[in-house]
Amino acid sequence: MATERLVVVGGDAAGMSAASQARRLKGPAELEITAFERGHFTSYSACGIPYWIGGQVPGRDDLIARTPEEHRARDIDLRMRTEVVELDLPGGRVRTRDLDSGSEAWTGYDKLVLATGARPVRPRLPGIGAHGVHGVQTLDDGQRLMDTLQRTEGTEGRRAVVVGAGYIGVEMAEALVARGYEVTVLHRGPQPMATLDPDMGALVHAAMNRMGILTVSGAEVTKILTDDRGAVRAVATAAGDEYPADVVVLGIGVEPRTALAREAGLPLGESGGILTDLSMRVRGHENIWSGGDCVEVLDLVAGCMRHIPLGTHANKHGQVIGSGVGGGYATFPGVVGTAVSKVCDLEIARTGLRERDALAAGLRFVTATISSTTTAGYYPTAADMTVKMLAELRTRRLLGVQIVGGAGSAKRVDIAAVALTAGMTVDQVVSLDLGYAPPFSPVWDPVLVAARKAVSAVRAAG
Amino acid sequence: MATERLVVVGGDAAGMSAASQARRLKGPAELEITAFERGHFTSYSACGIPYWIGGQVPGRDDLIARTPEEHRARDIDLRMRTEVVELDLPGGRVRTRDLDSGSEAWTGYDKLVLATGARPVRPRLPGIGAHGVHGVQTLDDGQRLMDTLQRTEGTEGRRAVVVGAGYIGVEMAEALVARGYEVTVLHRGPQPMATLDPDMGALVHAAMNRMGILTVSGAEVTKILTDDRGAVRAVATAAGDEYPADVVVLGIGVEPRTALAREAGLPLGESGGILTDLSMRVRGHENIWSGGDCVEVLDLVAGCMRHIPLGTHANKHGQVIGSGVGGGYATFPGVVGTAVSKVCDLEIARTGLRERDALAAGLRFVTATISSTTTAGYYPTAADMTVKMLAELRTRRLLGVQIVGGAGSAKRVDIAAVALTAGMTVDQVVSLDLGYAPPFSPVWDPVLVAARKAVSAVRAAG
Repeated sequence: MATERLVVVGGDAAGMSAASQARRLKGPAELEITAFERGHFTSYSACGIPYWIGGQVPGRDDLIARTPEEHRARDIDLRMRTEVVELDLPGGRVRTRDLDSGSEAWTGYDKLVLATGARPVRPRLPGIGAHGVHGVQTLDDGQRLMDTLQRTEGTEGRRAVVVGAGYIGVEMAEALVARGYEVTVLHRGPQPMATLDPDMGALVHAAMNRMGILTVSGAEVTKILTDDRGAVRAVATAAGDEYPADVVVLGIGVEPRTALAREAGLPLGESGGILTDLSMRVRGHENIWSGGDCVEVLDLVAGCMRHIPLGTHANKHGQVIGSGVGGGYATFPGVVGTAVSKVCDLEIARTGLRERDALAAGLRFVTATISSTTTAGYYPTAADMTVKMLAELRTRRLLGVQIVGGAGSAKRVDIAAVALTAGMTVDQVVSLDLGYAPPFSPVWDPVLVAARKAVSAVRAAG
Repeated sequence: MATERLVVVGGDAAGMSAASQARRLKGPAELEITAFERGHFTSYSACGIPYWIGGQVPGRDDLIARTPEEHRARDIDLRMRTEVVELDLPGGRVRTRDLDSGSEAWTGYDKLVLATGARPVRPRLPGIGAHGVHGVQTLDDGQRLMDTLQRTEGTEGRRAVVVGAGYIGVEMAEALVARGYEVTVLHRGPQPMATLDPDMGALVHAAMNRMGILTVSGAEVTKILTDDRGAVRAVATAAGDEYPADVVVLGIGVEPRTALAREAGLPLGESGGILTDLSMRVRGHENIWSGGDCVEVLDLVAGCMRHIPLGTHANKHGQVIGSGVGGGYATFPGVVGTAVSKVCDLEIARTGLRERDALAAGLRFVTATISSTTTAGYYPTAADMTVKMLAELRTRRLLGVQIVGGAGSAKRVDIAAVALTAGMTVDQVVSLDLGYAPPFSPVWDPVLVAARKAVSAVRAAG
């Protein structure tokens, strides 16, 4: 049997998981694996960047799960600082550029994996290219931000502006507070954490303010003001306000990095992500797979494709792709939209549909919101916990859960994530046999209390 | 319409939840509710007793969710210190005894709720009646133990022996350590926490020893030795050893308190618990309901009836019974056997079947055990976490999960509890969209890592 050639574009979670899993199934005599990575790092936890910046994680390298050398030791020919600049699908080859020397070359493949990830949205604003304006998607991005922070370290009254109040925004706000910055978060919506409904976002808002983080809602950034050395000085908004800043972090989301795929004519979805089948094979292309932050995934609750960049999905995609490439069989059935986060002591979680998602999906529903405690109320570590639940009218099917609360709140969202996957009704959720003991839960877990209220609401709605 | 008469026997979780829910649905003009309770307390958290004894919960009354006066304010005629001593089913009446005056009376009912709870197993041993030997099932039991402890408080080198190493045993061991006792746990099995498989119990064993708790496996208690005032002095075992003790706590399980039901000819199961249908109506009796620690419940995984005394089930039973009594409709579909506990910093959880349960149920299965961390490995609060998973051969259905680990481990069992309820395969578990962020989970949640290993194991087994 001739040796097959696998080319992997992108050396982070999805790409290198795929390469590793393929290698587990096929040795170097059967499968030759070449992987190209533009950056300086492989297989790192981008989600860990805020905790490295904030100082909870001591060093950058702690975020690296596997180094280039470790991959090479497993017979993966990994080329760092090498960008793939063109896909020649009819020719079965990719054109690469060495980012240090500028030299280019073609590499042929039998099988191709595209794992090009996502990039932070950078609005086209005056001054956006100023020194001190940072996105935080890749570890290279994180290193650049850390360099900026360390340059100004030690000066008094340092100020940071975070643009955007999604996961990355609030996590970076916390990290910058931990580094001693005075932090302002500018965001467009009515409340931070637009991944939650505004009534739940309001709880995050209040908590951020209690932590001394200034949040400005309805803020549209119009300009980055710079000093005479080209470094950021302040951020201006449409309302005419100026927020002084020694550093600006962009946390306004990411978009799939799919220019290569688009140029090659691969199918892209509404959000620009690559479209694949359930085995993560690019639709209509027998020998090309794609996964991670550059693809769209099936939202099992809304019944549509979505771009949900998350390390945990990327790892699963890689696993599935590697099985397929290696001649095995695995699928990624889709997501229910689970995400957890924290800002200081406040835990934040969601799964399934928010009100706007349910409306957009054409669903009619009721909502139920309850307040309870993370443990038995009398137990000393009891913390407040608010749960909002959406249930479909008539079918009584669980549609989504949002949670905001103290330590022990966030991972409770997994209960709802599994129930959503199973298509349970809120009545079925009420009867779930969940772990109970005073240090872990009230006798009715808060998720069950929310389900009881949702049952009443759906009954009242007829 | 004539006023209906509801009589409730037992004033704790199941009984008073039933009474409260029935009252919500029907006012006093429609339904007259009389409840009898032998003890001094109503609606308390028996599960909280170890934390009150251990000092984490300041006072006994913190464990009481609703006092007799609060129940009476809702038009429930609650008679404290009144024991029901006979059920006259053909006559539709119960005979009661006032435990203070000794006077007896008959009370008629149209509908009857039996919520007589459970009682600690007290082996018939010489000296078992000695002062200082305590079970801890009811709040009255807890108060008696507290009185004993306070009598000897302040003396040096106090020693406690806990007989049994199930949930109550290990929680009481921790409580007694917290009160400054030197604690020895005597238990019959090869490892503590027989609610886990022995390989997982061994982790609990090691942790208890690290905390300075002496555990003695294979220990059969033969005698309680007393001093000349009739107080406990030591505990003797079949091996001929004597363990000095100022106090002895019995944690060898509880049995349904169903003598009344048995005498009245109500149907009982193999473990002596009352048998009900899915609406918690006693089988074959239109106007009698039963719930809480005195009934058997359907184990949805093993497909058999079991006695599982747990406050969280009792509360759900009460809710279901109250709906039925009040003319509504609700059911308790059964349990999957979820339980969580802790001993000092170690969290312990289980759901579904252990190896011996699966064998007894006639199932063939594989096991997979993995070690991971509660959070991303690089996050500062990362703690070790071990997960054992059972999956059925051929069907690949999840059968059970056991977890032992640091803070953040135990409630992860809920993921498996929901998956078991939904009848998921381990392959489906691998694909679950669980909450991921570095402070909450590794990129592959430990439960998913266990599922991956179970998938491999079931595949290898053919």
